[in-house]
Amino acid sequence: MQHDETRIDGVTEVTATSNIRARAHGGRAKCLQRLVRLGLPVPRTEALDVDLVRRIGQGHGPDAGAILGRFGPDALVSVRPSSGVGDWGGPPSILNVGMTDARREAIARDVGAQAADALYARFIQSYATHVARLNPDRFEDLDDVAAMLAAYEEQAEDPFPQDPARQLAAVLTSMARAWEGTTARLLRRAQGAPEDAGLGLVVQEMVLGVGDPERGESGSGVIQFVSSETGLPQVTGRYLRQSQGREALMRKAPALYLTQDARGPSLEERHPELLGELQTYGALCRNRLREEMQIEFTLSHGRLNILDAVRVKRSVRAAIRIAVSLATEGVIPEAEAVLRVPPRALLDVLHPRIDPEADLPAIATGIAASPGAATGRLVFSAADAQAAAAREEAVILVRRETTPGDVLGMHAARAILTERGGVSSHAAVIARGLGVPCVVGASEIAIDRRGRFFRTPDGSVHREGDTVTVDGSAGRVVAGAPRLLEAAFDDALITLLTWADERRDIGVRANCDTPDEAELARRFEAEGIGLCRTEHMFFDEGRLTVMREMIFAREDADRAHALDQLLPMQRDDFVRIFQIMAGRPVCIRLLDPPLHEFLPTDRPGMTDLAASLGLPLDEVEARIRSLSEFNPMLGMRGVRLGIAIPEIYEMQARAIFEAAVRTSPRMTPEVMIPLVSARREVELVKSRIDAVAARVRTESGVEFDYSLGVMVETPRAALRADEIAEYATFLSFGTNDLTQMTYGLSRDDAGRFMSAYLRERVFAEDPFLQLDTEGVGELLTMGAERGRRGRPDVTLSICGEHGGDPDSIAFCRAAGFDYVSCSPFRVPVARMAAAHLAIRDRGISTMAPPER
Amino acid sequence: MQHDETRIDGVTEVTATSNIRARAHGGRAKCLQRLVRLGLPVPRTEALDVDLVRRIGQGHGPDAGAILGRFGPDALVSVRPSSGVGDWGGPPSILNVGMTDARREAIARDVGAQAADALYARFIQSYATHVARLNPDRFEDLDDVAAMLAAYEEQAEDPFPQDPARQLAAVLTSMARAWEGTTARLLRRAQGAPEDAGLGLVVQEMVLGVGDPERGESGSGVIQFVSSETGLPQVTGRYLRQSQGREALMRKAPALYLTQDARGPSLEERHPELLGELQTYGALCRNRLREEMQIEFTLSHGRLNILDAVRVKRSVRAAIRIAVSLATEGVIPEAEAVLRVPPRALLDVLHPRIDPEADLPAIATGIAASPGAATGRLVFSAADAQAAAAREEAVILVRRETTPGDVLGMHAARAILTERGGVSSHAAVIARGLGVPCVVGASEIAIDRRGRFFRTPDGSVHREGDTVTVDGSAGRVVAGAPRLLEAAFDDALITLLTWADERRDIGVRANCDTPDEAELARRFEAEGIGLCRTEHMFFDEGRLTVMREMIFAREDADRAHALDQLLPMQRDDFVRIFQIMAGRPVCIRLLDPPLHEFLPTDRPGMTDLAASLGLPLDEVEARIRSLSEFNPMLGMRGVRLGIAIPEIYEMQARAIFEAAVRTSPRMTPEVMIPLVSARREVELVKSRIDAVAARVRTESGVEFDYSLGVMVETPRAALRADEIAEYATFLSFGTNDLTQMTYGLSRDDAGRFMSAYLRERVFAEDPFLQLDTEGVGELLTMGAERGRRGRPDVTLSICGEHGGDPDSIAFCRAAGFDYVSCSPFRVPVARMAAAHLAIRDRGISTMAPPER
Repeated sequence: MQHDETRIDGVTEVTATSNIRARAHGGRAKCLQRLVRLGLPVPRTEALDVDLVRRIGQGHGPDAGAILGRFGPDALVSVRPSSGVGDWGGPPSILNVGMTDARREAIARDVGAQAADALYARFIQSYATHVARLNPDRFEDLDDVAAMLAAYEEQAEDPFPQDPARQLAAVLTSMARAWEGTTARLLRRAQGAPEDAGLGLVVQEMVLGVGDPERGESGSGVIQFVSSETGLPQVTGRYLRQSQGREALMRKAPALYLTQDARGPSLEERHPELLGELQTYGALCRNRLREEMQIEFTLSHGRLNILDAVRVKRSVRAAIRIAVSLATEGVIPEAEAVLRVPPRALLDVLHPRIDPEADLPAIATGIAASPGAATGRLVFSAADAQAAAAREEAVILVRRETTPGDVLGMHAARAILTERGGVSSHAAVIARGLGVPCVVGASEIAIDRRGRFFRTPDGSVHREGDTVTVDGSAGRVVAGAPRLLEAAFDDALITLLTWADERRDIGVRANCDTPDEAELARRFEAEGIGLCRTEHMFFDEGRLTVMREMIFAREDADRAHALDQLLPMQRDDFVRIFQIMAGRPVCIRLLDPPLHEFLPTDRPGMTDLAASLGLPLDEVEARIRSLSEFNPMLGMRGVRLGIAIPEIYEMQARAIFEAAVRTSPRMTPEVMIPLVSARREVELVKSRIDAVAARVRTESGVEFDYSLGVMVETPRAALRADEIAEYATFLSFGTNDLTQMTYGLSRDDAGRFMSAYLRERVFAEDPFLQLDTEGVGELLTMGAERGRRGRPDVTLSICGEHGGDPDSIAFCRAAGFDYVSCSPFRVPVARMAAAHLAIRDRGISTMAPPER
Repeated sequence: MQHDETRIDGVTEVTATSNIRARAHGGRAKCLQRLVRLGLPVPRTEALDVDLVRRIGQGHGPDAGAILGRFGPDALVSVRPSSGVGDWGGPPSILNVGMTDARREAIARDVGAQAADALYARFIQSYATHVARLNPDRFEDLDDVAAMLAAYEEQAEDPFPQDPARQLAAVLTSMARAWEGTTARLLRRAQGAPEDAGLGLVVQEMVLGVGDPERGESGSGVIQFVSSETGLPQVTGRYLRQSQGREALMRKAPALYLTQDARGPSLEERHPELLGELQTYGALCRNRLREEMQIEFTLSHGRLNILDAVRVKRSVRAAIRIAVSLATEGVIPEAEAVLRVPPRALLDVLHPRIDPEADLPAIATGIAASPGAATGRLVFSAADAQAAAAREEAVILVRRETTPGDVLGMHAARAILTERGGVSSHAAVIARGLGVPCVVGASEIAIDRRGRFFRTPDGSVHREGDTVTVDGSAGRVVAGAPRLLEAAFDDALITLLTWADERRDIGVRANCDTPDEAELARRFEAEGIGLCRTEHMFFDEGRLTVMREMIFAREDADRAHALDQLLPMQRDDFVRIFQIMAGRPVCIRLLDPPLHEFLPTDRPGMTDLAASLGLPLDEVEARIRSLSEFNPMLGMRGVRLGIAIPEIYEMQARAIFEAAVRTSPRMTPEVMIPLVSARREVELVKSRIDAVAARVRTESGVEFDYSLGVMVETPRAALRADEIAEYATFLSFGTNDLTQMTYGLSRDDAGRFMSAYLRERVFAEDPFLQLDTEGVGELLTMGAERGRRGRPDVTLSICGEHGGDPDSIAFCRAAGFDYVSCSPFRVPVARMAAAHLAIRDRGISTMAPPER
């Protein structure tokens, strides 16, 4: 072939040595150059850079004939988009540009009229649709070239262009302009592309894929060597004889399987040498491009051409497996394997999810509050959930909102659905802690608790006992039991997390309130428990009654009696948790919620309580009323309880110390005081707890250590962290409450306007989901600095929900925190996120994987 | 007389030129020197300095005989305490030291046996009691010297000392040691004296006050020339013939009146020349000591001696009058007159109070939440209070706690008593705003609202209609109607405040919600209104219904209709307030509370609402329930309402602007956005309000200005004040809410543990009463600095309850605030406090008035 090699500004031939840059020419051009460098048989390709394409869009393009001239007089070419580094979409590829009546004759002579007609028809159709913008329906049922040319001429009021250069010019202009269109811009923005991202194009010589069977195999296909679902080795793809481009994927028959297959004929049987060649190319890509690639190929009279290769699409599970395999085989460093898996993506594999194939309509939608999916029968009270769990029935608990009294029922349920609340509502926080799927704020459903059903806006009614599936990752509920894909905490993930742990430089602990959660924390290899809330321990039926007796005690002796009964129960909890954690640190928060949370709110509950306490109902009601508060969040809770009723904290401290004495290996419990706002609070509680420790040491004859710290949840505690640290060896920032108080915003009540706030961009993000680094974050930074000023070796951590959020972890790491603590299911995310930060900081090879 | 003038270390004769210093010798010694310098006939006085007295207490005193030697061989002396600058107490004076059997004979020869015996008996009794520490009861009924000496000898197991030097040594040692005793230390600490305050003593030659009537008038008395109650000129005091010391004050008969008096004989009639001499001395003190003094004098055979002089004790009202008189007459500068009246003391004269003479037992005690006293009949609901007020009956409203729905009833009541709540509870804040006496947190009373009575711990029952008096200054309630002393906002106070205004350099505005309060603000000369809350305007019966229709509106049109009805009502409120303020600035806060505060909470109220809205009761109940919040303080209120339901703020802005257009002189309203936590909130609201202003300008054809600012009540708003100030021309710190959020502490719920917190010294002061300068204060300082960074000419103020607290004003002034705003009744206090700060800063003569 005669090639015109005149230089055209912005047009570069893709060769092993030419100056192709992803930023200038797009990802596809760069990838093709890599394939060329590997020696793969890539047809001649010319890359048009972003600037040139922009000029083409503005009508200042070069002579298309000169570009065609590069390919020789008779070449057909394809034009494909080559967008920025990420895959930001772009106009569809156009094949067979240059096809004309004359060229059709020549090709017919070469490979037969049928093949030539097929190519011409396909070109007319895509030119008509994507370049001339004619109505595609008018070309749908035509397969005769003459009819197509007539249809084109009729609609375009112009004959089909017979000048290849004019064709190419029109194709290039059309693609350049489509890129600048509003639709394309919106699509790109949705994918996170910059506003002004440019488009490159590649013009590639066509390999026909149709030909004379006598002269050898012709066709096209795609192939990859791992499973997109699992990431395990598996040849996947399809090959279609007498086809072009990706037709093999669209028209299944009469495609061939790639490898030998009982269901039908395969390329391996027919042309084992060709499959072997493809496998060689796949291995080359894997080892030299350091990535699993999907390869697009065309056979032309038995000769293999590689047209393109893109990263294998993959599930999170497959991404993990591929990254670990590449690193294990030494293709990439372990650190890069870690970087290749986005931390948040892990949530996908830690929980079951609804099979994406099961395309069911939602009967309710709300806020995705705790990820995972679960199927069960509807119940409308925590008691019913517990009863069902006792019968080993899977149930979904539906509540208007949950309260601490619902916690045992939440434990018993497979998933939770609430009408009210936001991502940080009680239901959401507890569900995440339990790892139970949860949808909150499904405000369109109308619950009838007495009738035991809920109604959806379309009027349909879902009753107790009906089977539904809650998808807490997507925030929706579907009727029935679709297929669920199981969680995959498999060897590849465990290996990846081990690599992550070897590199990260900030600790990760879990928030666990129960032995079950502690087991989860162990499984996810948390370094300890960063927040063990003690209040949930009192909701067990037997304990709740004693707790209520304690609350209702009028005499010190009565209170002491009740606390004496609670002591061994609480101690047993700690013994179990300490044993599970096997010497890893456990930070226990002393009782925090207002006492009225332990009291019944409805008449039957009050009647029961009156009976069990032997008090008249009206006195019980009056006492409960007197304990109620206008703003419980800002009321008598936390350390205020500890100072007003010191016996409670003393009992808890004793339970902790006695448990520590009984546990082997001996551990050093960490005791945390909640809701501190002034130094003197810590001083007072510390002196009492020190005294309890001394008594337990004397009684048991066992020496043990403990450390005492403060949960920093009020702005004042952050501001006064220096003097608070004089009495506290650690400061753990409770970012949930700190966010509430810094904004003056209750997470339970924010749901009613949070959506308006996000829509109006008042808040860039829900501050309960993503740490507000400007406001709350400044208090964290100040608190950390001042805490260190007061005690240079003070241990700093966060234990709010943000502890599992990668951005918040980055913030805490930058502020020099020692560890973060989060829900057990967030622990793997946090471990990965922390590793990403450390790896990026230390400048270990951070080469991004090739995008295509 | 022969005087031994040998120098004794630490003993200094009080002469015009001797080196007497208040710090070394105590206030009494210094004052006596001043009297000597004025030429007043003060008997010879020796001052013992603090160091000497300390040595005496430790047993290392000098030879008492040497001290006595200063007075000549036959002198009797008195020993009096001369404590530090303030009056920090001290042991009682001992007179007639040196009296012995021999001296009694000599005196009997001079002035008669009866007088000599009386002096001797008095000395034995006080020596026995205060020096020998014998049981005073054993000397009570004896008036025979022999019997007393015998009683002394029997009890002391030692004869009464007959050596004057030994007597004096014992007296000095006893007084020095009494000063160091625990009781005295506690008393001193209670009065704010430093731990190590020292005691000086003065030893003064006795002038007997008893004598031979033939040789001239003898006796003693005290005199002052102004009324201690009013401060107006009035000769007050008492003179008793044949007496010593302050006996005239204790034994009323046979005392003489000082001036001519119809009730009996007077000194003026008997010895006009002596009264004249005293008046001369009084005027000398006034002009040269620059203070009204009470003078203690003794006549000895017609010769006048001045033994001592102390500042006239005075009520606050008198203190004001005296300071103003002294300054008006040029005796002291006006600035000093201002400094002489403590700002907080003004509260005493701005409110009526219970006559201190009426010593009634309290039937209930609680927290003094709003000062003043008022008498009325008990009512137990806001509606009853309104009904009674309509009949012009004075009533006291008793509630468990108040809610916004009670505000009209609170307006109607003369005083308020609640069982729950703290100094910053709803009841307390509103009551202070209204200037209505209020006692909150009277937790010992048990209210039976249906039975319309309350029971006190002693079992007594107080029913509707019973008359009680609430003393909001002392935090108590007494049965019946004791005499009340009226408020005194008189010419002297007005003059003093004018002088204060001329000197202060920080503005003072008032928090006013109603025209009545605006009238009060005018009366107390506030410079404007710093906080006009608009929510109370909607509780009027007619408006409340419309407000509820607005809240319940499902369609925009219904809401618009309701708001159209509210608009003219709101506009009229503003017109009235603007007219009262006559051009002074008015800062109006847009609607702040959550909407559910406007809804009924009880069944009858809901039934009424259902009827007026034409809705079924259960729907009304459900809607009310759906609007309820877990933590209303942190819920959908403030600017969150303004963003979620923009029509409300738009209506309010229109009402404000239309009112401004209708008021002459034209004023520039200030519109304030509450509960801001993010810049974008301000940006959004500002753009809507600007649009309303533009429409009103067009419609009315009147140009007007307004300014828009932000109420800084969340910690985040303080932290982000720089960017918030980009859209806000003023920042007003709402320290009530800011304190609540900084501490995580609801003022309504704090009552249950605040007393424990103050007792345990967790908080030095209730942070709702006194600004927490360490925590909240730092946010204020940061907010101010950052606000100025964002807008250098931003106006800064505080409008929380702290605005009237002198310490908080000092803080705000130091932080460069432009003004403070407080309850109208606090305005005079704030004006004075601000003047004190400015005067002290500028170093204008700040000489403290003489203490004695």
